[in-house]
Amino acid sequence: MQRLSKAIPIFQPKGLTKNVLKASSAQDLLQKLGFVKKSQSGVFQWLPLGLRSLRKINQIIRQGMNEGVNGQEVALSVLSPKEIWETTKRWNNNELFKLKDAKGAEFCLTGTCEEDITSLMKNYVNSYKDLPLMVYQIGRKYRDEIRPRGGLLRGREFIMKDGYSFAATKSDALELFRDVNVVYERIFQQLQIPVVKALADSGEIGGDLSQEFHLLHNSGEDTVFKCDACDEVSTMEKCEAIPVQEGKHLGKVAVKYALTTDHSTLICFYFPEGRELNWNLALKSMDSDIDIHLKDVHNDKILEIYKGELDDEMFACIMRVMDSRISSRSDFPDFPLTKYLKNNFSQLDGVPLVNAEDNEICASCGEGHLHGSKSIEVGHTFYLGTKYSGPLNLNFTDKDNIKNNTLVQMGCYGIGVSRLIGAIAEIYKDDLGLNLPSSISPYLVSFCVPPGDAESGTYVQLMNDLANISKLKNEIMTQFPSNTGLGGRITLSHSIGIPLCVIVGPKSWPNVEIEIRSPLLLKRKEPNWVGEYAIFHDQYNWNVIEENEKHPEKHIVSAAHLSDVISILLKGL
Amino acid sequence: MQRLSKAIPIFQPKGLTKNVLKASSAQDLLQKLGFVKKSQSGVFQWLPLGLRSLRKINQIIRQGMNEGVNGQEVALSVLSPKEIWETTKRWNNNELFKLKDAKGAEFCLTGTCEEDITSLMKNYVNSYKDLPLMVYQIGRKYRDEIRPRGGLLRGREFIMKDGYSFAATKSDALELFRDVNVVYERIFQQLQIPVVKALADSGEIGGDLSQEFHLLHNSGEDTVFKCDACDEVSTMEKCEAIPVQEGKHLGKVAVKYALTTDHSTLICFYFPEGRELNWNLALKSMDSDIDIHLKDVHNDKILEIYKGELDDEMFACIMRVMDSRISSRSDFPDFPLTKYLKNNFSQLDGVPLVNAEDNEICASCGEGHLHGSKSIEVGHTFYLGTKYSGPLNLNFTDKDNIKNNTLVQMGCYGIGVSRLIGAIAEIYKDDLGLNLPSSISPYLVSFCVPPGDAESGTYVQLMNDLANISKLKNEIMTQFPSNTGLGGRITLSHSIGIPLCVIVGPKSWPNVEIEIRSPLLLKRKEPNWVGEYAIFHDQYNWNVIEENEKHPEKHIVSAAHLSDVISILLKGL
Repeated sequence: MQRLSKAIPIFQPKGLTKNVLKASSAQDLLQKLGFVKKSQSGVFQWLPLGLRSLRKINQIIRQGMNEGVNGQEVALSVLSPKEIWETTKRWNNNELFKLKDAKGAEFCLTGTCEEDITSLMKNYVNSYKDLPLMVYQIGRKYRDEIRPRGGLLRGREFIMKDGYSFAATKSDALELFRDVNVVYERIFQQLQIPVVKALADSGEIGGDLSQEFHLLHNSGEDTVFKCDACDEVSTMEKCEAIPVQEGKHLGKVAVKYALTTDHSTLICFYFPEGRELNWNLALKSMDSDIDIHLKDVHNDKILEIYKGELDDEMFACIMRVMDSRISSRSDFPDFPLTKYLKNNFSQLDGVPLVNAEDNEICASCGEGHLHGSKSIEVGHTFYLGTKYSGPLNLNFTDKDNIKNNTLVQMGCYGIGVSRLIGAIAEIYKDDLGLNLPSSISPYLVSFCVPPGDAESGTYVQLMNDLANISKLKNEIMTQFPSNTGLGGRITLSHSIGIPLCVIVGPKSWPNVEIEIRSPLLLKRKEPNWVGEYAIFHDQYNWNVIEENEKHPEKHIVSAAHLSDVISILLKGL
Repeated sequence: MQRLSKAIPIFQPKGLTKNVLKASSAQDLLQKLGFVKKSQSGVFQWLPLGLRSLRKINQIIRQGMNEGVNGQEVALSVLSPKEIWETTKRWNNNELFKLKDAKGAEFCLTGTCEEDITSLMKNYVNSYKDLPLMVYQIGRKYRDEIRPRGGLLRGREFIMKDGYSFAATKSDALELFRDVNVVYERIFQQLQIPVVKALADSGEIGGDLSQEFHLLHNSGEDTVFKCDACDEVSTMEKCEAIPVQEGKHLGKVAVKYALTTDHSTLICFYFPEGRELNWNLALKSMDSDIDIHLKDVHNDKILEIYKGELDDEMFACIMRVMDSRISSRSDFPDFPLTKYLKNNFSQLDGVPLVNAEDNEICASCGEGHLHGSKSIEVGHTFYLGTKYSGPLNLNFTDKDNIKNNTLVQMGCYGIGVSRLIGAIAEIYKDDLGLNLPSSISPYLVSFCVPPGDAESGTYVQLMNDLANISKLKNEIMTQFPSNTGLGGRITLSHSIGIPLCVIVGPKSWPNVEIEIRSPLLLKRKEPNWVGEYAIFHDQYNWNVIEENEKHPEKHIVSAAHLSDVISILLKGL
């Protein structure tokens, strides 16, 4: 059979110059370089290069979950029936894409699968002997974001690894939670990306215990704080900060009203104007006795609701909560109720109520100073308890053989897979394009020959030698647009982040150039590898030609030694 | 880190006995054995075993497409905007799942991606130099079937490989079409399933040239006919049959009315009562000049429409088309128009108009007899021409450098991946469960030891020896429900179609039993393999203990030779 069709390994628009590479944002580069192509707001088509990187990430995650926590991989449908979401009271969520079938049945496109996995596991969990279990999947998720942004960082269709644990007891559940956190650290290490683990608020999903994994980068939407004494890292939402000096804010004070869950008491949170109320801390101060649905409701409206439920303003019950930064000498706003009894007033003083700021004191150790960094959230682990097993009735027969009397203790664990590609592009973008770690670069090696020369017998032999290196199976990029010259091919290889670029041309023959693009290989200092590197410097007449910060390190080596040298370099990737 | 969580490689409900295995339908077995679990009508959750089989099929398809036709793999979004479907006039399709986002924009969930891929490729196809190209993906598709049935055979969410070709000329496009057909035959061969290629009608998708790939099986919904002289195979829709004796049907005649596309002429198709009108043949008889929208409209309604557009019944224009099985002596129904001029009557005689029947004559060669078989469609290839590139304006600059003056010639190519699993289960189900070919069985080898003995040093060593066989990487099933005895483990291994079952127990030690489940291995007759088989019979003291149709072939071999014997057996899989 004739192979008529052409290879287009690079889905790239025309005219991708060095200046364009330099000037483009990381998210634009992912499109211009042919990793993805936006089809609609927040929706992307995955192109061959992106798909290759995606598969590498997936494989690392899969291996981590399988080997680390005995994860069982499944693939749940994207169509989830309304009923189970009503049971858990999550159907009324504006970010769910919803649809009806021809018979009128209602579905959503899953953005997360607690409901579906809990329903599924009811078929397989019967006895305490079936537990504990870990089930996960890697696949598309949907969220109807009003303002999708940041390319792959926040899409409406995105790829997520979501895992779910099932245990008989809380202590087993917490042990699984801890295990997954260890596995996550290992996964991010293998992905060769610097991720920090932060204590987190469990937010919408619920549950008591939660960790987030963040990539530190200025482009991030999130902020994490690290204490320089106890080293604890926490998200902005979770972080509790003590001001350097309490009660020293003498300027204007802002107030946010809230109501207790029974609407019997008006809560007034006072904090320095210009700072942001932290709802997590506010809830904590009141032992969560706050009607959280009123979180974003304007103060006036809350007063109106409160007064509406009050028989006589005289008997208003009021709780004042004072942020630790203010004191009675601060400049308070007028109090909106005019008739009230002092007896019905209570006050909490010295409570941390606002988002932390750089250099404030860590409330965990009470000693160190906090330092904030912008970051991108790429993973999240939750202990869920019975939040989902309760309403959906996932139970089991316990050790005393009492039938179905105990609810399963759950946990859930996410990694934003497509977001990871967006985030990695952000942190590894440079003037030449994307300088990807070898764990996710679409290929490990590019084989660049001048157009037309690719068919030459000598070059084919050299290429075949490389292809026989087992680590390079399906990892050598050989196909380039036919109208691209040797220089263009090298530029292309560098731009899409291939760590090793082999350049074969008549000029240097019988020597071959190798350009090392990988930032990690260049920085690698492990004794073993440095040793091998030194040996082959001698043995193979390996010479560094040029090395500077802007350009990959250029080397020259005899063609006869190419495979040996590449094999050793691969060990360092 | 402690590995707390348990493995449940088998997501199986309790109580799966030999009788249940024997009595269950193939589609039920896929659920009971833990390949998939139905979550709603036509929607399935993929479980670990099903996912393993699915990945194996995907890998074979991927390799076929990459190596055979230089396919470029992409992954398109499932959310497709209404606009492009309106442009190609396919939005009004009741089988599309449709939804709106929060801003009111409308989407469908893609059931096929001609519109999306054509839009995408507008970014990358500019010149004739960019062509020809082959792009494909493997992923979920959606079709809101009113009556989903047959388990994985006809779902509402299913997995499909859909490929699309782009060429500069019709002849290039047809060459790609032929190439893909060859690749498809190779893929089905590698999947070790008997598929026939049939000429097909291109139906809804349109275009001129189309082939279908069918698995012959009594449970199938389709029928294909093969001629015993020219060997041509065609689908029921495509097949043209000549009656053994023309005009011999003297019984009742049925009639179906139609209108020409301009509604100027009433067409009356006459054919033997009890036979089914074949629309493909009907269209062909009229050079497609038929208003196809009226296909399923009742005769009375068609007459009403026709009369409504007619000034005077006297001038009615009528075309009578006679199936070749009837003659003027047949028993015709009354003609519904009473006033008409004979001059405006025309008649076509001897046209094949109905679906073929067994033993009728093949119209292709005019000699052989046709034989029908029930079948399951698993693949389909189309030449599309400019059906999509036209309305969506996918064009290119030709060799004469005239800008964007030529439309791209397209083709599209589907394989029903999840349906394949359903179909393979149908054809390979036996009394023990699913007897899968090794190409798609979830594991190649099971390692069955009595519960509790798995930790024994000797057994672990034996297991590790097996695991070192490179073909067995990640291919040995070792984890069984802990409460299953040795017998239950063997039953389980056979039921999920693992071709080689290694049984290690104190009774036979230091010998080990191997049960060969694979139907193909047992039937294999290639001289090479028979030779090796004979050699190891001698060399390794390999002895057949028992062999019969109902049970796998049982052998016994010394534990010391286990790895060698398994290695040789694997060559035959």
